[in-house]
Amino acid sequence: MRLRHKPWASDFLAEHSQYAIANPTLYKGKWNELFGNDNPIHIEVGTGKGQFIVGMAQQNPEINYIGIELFDSVIVAALQKVVDLQLPNLKLLNVNAKDLAEFFDVEEIDRVYLNFSDPWPKTRHIKRRLTYKSFLALYEKILKKGGEIHFKTDNQGLFEYSLISFSEYGLMLKYVSLDLHNSNFEGNIMTEYEEKFSEKGQRIYRVEAKYMNEEK
Amino acid sequence: MRLRHKPWASDFLAEHSQYAIANPTLYKGKWNELFGNDNPIHIEVGTGKGQFIVGMAQQNPEINYIGIELFDSVIVAALQKVVDLQLPNLKLLNVNAKDLAEFFDVEEIDRVYLNFSDPWPKTRHIKRRLTYKSFLALYEKILKKGGEIHFKTDNQGLFEYSLISFSEYGLMLKYVSLDLHNSNFEGNIMTEYEEKFSEKGQRIYRVEAKYMNEEK
Repeated sequence: MRLRHKPWASDFLAEHSQYAIANPTLYKGKWNELFGNDNPIHIEVGTGKGQFIVGMAQQNPEINYIGIELFDSVIVAALQKVVDLQLPNLKLLNVNAKDLAEFFDVEEIDRVYLNFSDPWPKTRHIKRRLTYKSFLALYEKILKKGGEIHFKTDNQGLFEYSLISFSEYGLMLKYVSLDLHNSNFEGNIMTEYEEKFSEKGQRIYRVEAKYMNEEK
Repeated sequence: MRLRHKPWASDFLAEHSQYAIANPTLYKGKWNELFGNDNPIHIEVGTGKGQFIVGMAQQNPEINYIGIELFDSVIVAALQKVVDLQLPNLKLLNVNAKDLAEFFDVEEIDRVYLNFSDPWPKTRHIKRRLTYKSFLALYEKILKKGGEIHFKTDNQGLFEYSLISFSEYGLMLKYVSLDLHNSNFEGNIMTEYEEKFSEKGQRIYRVEAKYMNEEK
């Protein structure tokens, strides 16, 4: 994604701190208090411009969503959508995914979405991939037992890598589509990137993987 | 695959009983005696016309191969190749895969190959798929601990199903390619079917999955 510096971004985020949470560490273990209900919490790691998580929040009002995005110049596009729609069940965090455990308590989260994550194709950057084992350990910590990762991408190499990484970590594959837009999967909400690349005939890959850490 | 009745097939198999083993139950637990060495044994379930396993046997003389094929009208094409090449490390069995445990002892086999298995796309035929859990249990029985299944197919639905079936069974994915012929995988031996369909631009999918039953 091309990043343009947007000097007004930090001001825009600060102006809408009811949606773009400025000090997320304050809510660790208390996100349901902030949302004002006990609904499940689903997070998207790498929310980008927010089309996916905004669509999900509209489609599923009984679920709370938190979108996490490192770049303020990108997350402002997501924030604009949330402000326009005044969505009560969606918060945004302009933070680094590697710090997730600072913002979420053990077993506080019900599901992790990863959409079109940066493929980091070079082997020397493998640890930056959001499906690398250290990230899988981080998600495991904040997810409820038996929690799930739902991942989609158009990047064949990242998908192949991620299937193996999930398997090696002990996650169980529950659903695999090697061509999402020609499958019988219903209710797919597209990201901005997905819309653009699927129009070009690019295949979209999708997997649901489950942590096998429930009590037997 | 179109099956033509070949009345001469059973005679041809009987004439070459040094390659097409007529009574494989006799060799249960004794295949290494028949091969005359202690080399690893790899089997292909659904050998078809034999191009893959013949190529493998030529490429890897230090491994013993056994090709299993239900249809005598098909396996004769494989037998013709073995007879022509007089391969000492390849045997053929004209038997049903569901009876594998009658022909092989516990932990007698080192690897199972499945190539372009019948997809049996209808849900009511799921138990016939060679990656269905009952077959995975059968392979586990005859494979050494930590044994592997190497599977390739052009059938997207069967591949998606098989990834999930492997994962649910507890097999670990070691290698996944979603486009084998445009990958860096080396030494691929094509089946007849693979040659025909990859020429049409059809993607070939490949996975290596390992049983996690070794002593810790």
